[in-house]
Amino acid sequence: MLVTFLKRIDALKNKAFAEDGFNGYLVFNGANMLYFLGFPGTSALFVPSEGEGLVYVYSVNYEQAKAAGKGFNVQLVKSTENLLAKIAAQAKACGVKKLCVDSLSVDAWRNLSKEFAGEDAVQVNGSFVQGLRRVKDKEEIALMRRASEITGEGMKAAAEAVKPGVKEYEVAGEIEYAMRRSGAGPTAFETIVASGACSAFPHGGCSRREIQSGDLVVVDIGATFDYYCSDMTRTFVAGKPSAKQQKIYRTVLKAHDAAFDAIKAGAVIGDVDAVARKVIADAGYGEYFVHRLGHGVGLEVHEPPSMFSENKELLAAGNVVTDEPGIYIPGYGGVRIEDTVLVTAKGAEKLTSGPYSLCGV
Amino acid sequence: MLVTFLKRIDALKNKAFAEDGFNGYLVFNGANMLYFLGFPGTSALFVPSEGEGLVYVYSVNYEQAKAAGKGFNVQLVKSTENLLAKIAAQAKACGVKKLCVDSLSVDAWRNLSKEFAGEDAVQVNGSFVQGLRRVKDKEEIALMRRASEITGEGMKAAAEAVKPGVKEYEVAGEIEYAMRRSGAGPTAFETIVASGACSAFPHGGCSRREIQSGDLVVVDIGATFDYYCSDMTRTFVAGKPSAKQQKIYRTVLKAHDAAFDAIKAGAVIGDVDAVARKVIADAGYGEYFVHRLGHGVGLEVHEPPSMFSENKELLAAGNVVTDEPGIYIPGYGGVRIEDTVLVTAKGAEKLTSGPYSLCGV
Repeated sequence: MLVTFLKRIDALKNKAFAEDGFNGYLVFNGANMLYFLGFPGTSALFVPSEGEGLVYVYSVNYEQAKAAGKGFNVQLVKSTENLLAKIAAQAKACGVKKLCVDSLSVDAWRNLSKEFAGEDAVQVNGSFVQGLRRVKDKEEIALMRRASEITGEGMKAAAEAVKPGVKEYEVAGEIEYAMRRSGAGPTAFETIVASGACSAFPHGGCSRREIQSGDLVVVDIGATFDYYCSDMTRTFVAGKPSAKQQKIYRTVLKAHDAAFDAIKAGAVIGDVDAVARKVIADAGYGEYFVHRLGHGVGLEVHEPPSMFSENKELLAAGNVVTDEPGIYIPGYGGVRIEDTVLVTAKGAEKLTSGPYSLCGV
Repeated sequence: MLVTFLKRIDALKNKAFAEDGFNGYLVFNGANMLYFLGFPGTSALFVPSEGEGLVYVYSVNYEQAKAAGKGFNVQLVKSTENLLAKIAAQAKACGVKKLCVDSLSVDAWRNLSKEFAGEDAVQVNGSFVQGLRRVKDKEEIALMRRASEITGEGMKAAAEAVKPGVKEYEVAGEIEYAMRRSGAGPTAFETIVASGACSAFPHGGCSRREIQSGDLVVVDIGATFDYYCSDMTRTFVAGKPSAKQQKIYRTVLKAHDAAFDAIKAGAVIGDVDAVARKVIADAGYGEYFVHRLGHGVGLEVHEPPSMFSENKELLAAGNVVTDEPGIYIPGYGGVRIEDTVLVTAKGAEKLTSGPYSLCGV
């Protein structure tokens, strides 16, 4: 795997140093460090255009980083040391004149600039790494495929558990237990089981409410596998669906399917969003689709590209995005259907799978 | 509960506006917003010294915020609007001249400054809110007590599950399932079940490794309850502990107990850390205690105050901190014992509880 990570660092060098004239790149964002290194617990990664890259690790994680980070130059940072000063000194020693940083708070940026060569010499620009991360390589796709399979096991458990009289958090417990038994890491995000009127809140959470007969129940879940995320939503009815619930459900499913058919390399993202939005508007529910169609998924559950109306960017093969239209009627309830989808040259492939059944029982 | 939240906002006004001459405060940090509002999904909270505070929410969370945020002025932000410009206009309309922000990226700070009144008029200072949050009120303590009880249920499940032949992630599954069935929200952090040589990594994670007979197994877990965290570690041996394991274990427990006895309002934090560190050093393991004694816990699992050697701050009644010394011998294994502890006027109270048993079987 080391070769995979070194290849990613080389790609960063080619992008950031060749295109924009930086000669040092600093990574502070946790997901970005995982992308380049493959192990957690690091505090910074410094990549100079000339000379060796360095991984900075505090003593609490030092032994772990040395064991996991064979092939990298792992530097111990003592608790009494100033990390930013240490990095600035190293950058100067490597002859770096212009430093690019992926992300930084205002305070840390000021401190780093002072230690290095002033505020003009330290620019914050995360787009190079985002540009790399949004196109998944085959190792990443394999991990996301596994995370998605496990998420499907969680959704099967949800289909079993959603019943009148069961509490939302109890359903979450069954889902997460099923995912762990299938080999999952921690959840990719906080499990959503939102029933009744709360199903009309897209981020309806998971409360201690007891599911009632006839409730719509939105279940939005994701497992991780070796740090990679998956994201999947199904909506159930606890009992027999009403005609209105069925109409809303069929509309969302049609929007979901239409958007899926529109996803392919070269498609304009805003156009894909529009396809789903039109289906929902045509059915008379336009005002109730209150969010974007989806988002990129990878080491983070929300990452570029964002699938929103105004986005003129093109999808590319290797992007992994969600397709998740919804209809949310305040005071009544909501329906969302979501898959995690791999963009391919010719179209798209669903990484999550499983029935689009309306009924939980 | 609304009165609790309004009281917290008043306390912020008294601190930030009276002491430092700001006349507008902006909260962007998610945990800080939860502290002042009690519900999630908001994008910003603006508190002017004169006039009404505003809560900014995008359409995806707007209906939920209106329902949960009765008593607050909830403003819809459309996806095509510039949130920072909208806030800057409101601040100007309220006569704000000097704006304080709790946390902001370099880019967002630049954009906000441009929309408002220049970089000198927008300062980033999170210490006012941190100062409030580190002293828990009785509502917060009640929630943390409940989160800690639930975490104890998770640890009981761990004690049952840790056995030779069981995989680390399977133990995590049993723990998390027990916590959910006890009414927990999402975990406060990624469950750690670190066995064998990995137990020597303080953040050893939770892998697919099968626990071996004789392994030390560090189990570090936390439930949330209504957004409040708990944090607890116990170390088990899968099988019969060796004399060396027992010696290390007894040393860590002695350090843990000694630090607990030193925790009280008015104690210097560095002195409390030193008490635990001395016990471990005296036993000959000083170099293997590679992290601080602990950290504050609340809406975030790691928040101020940090319990480290050089910290000259005093503990105060209402602080909730961890007491978690450890000994980590590379290639051999580690032991950590941790409780979440409430600082009181006269001493301290353990919020987490449960046996300090060495054996998992």
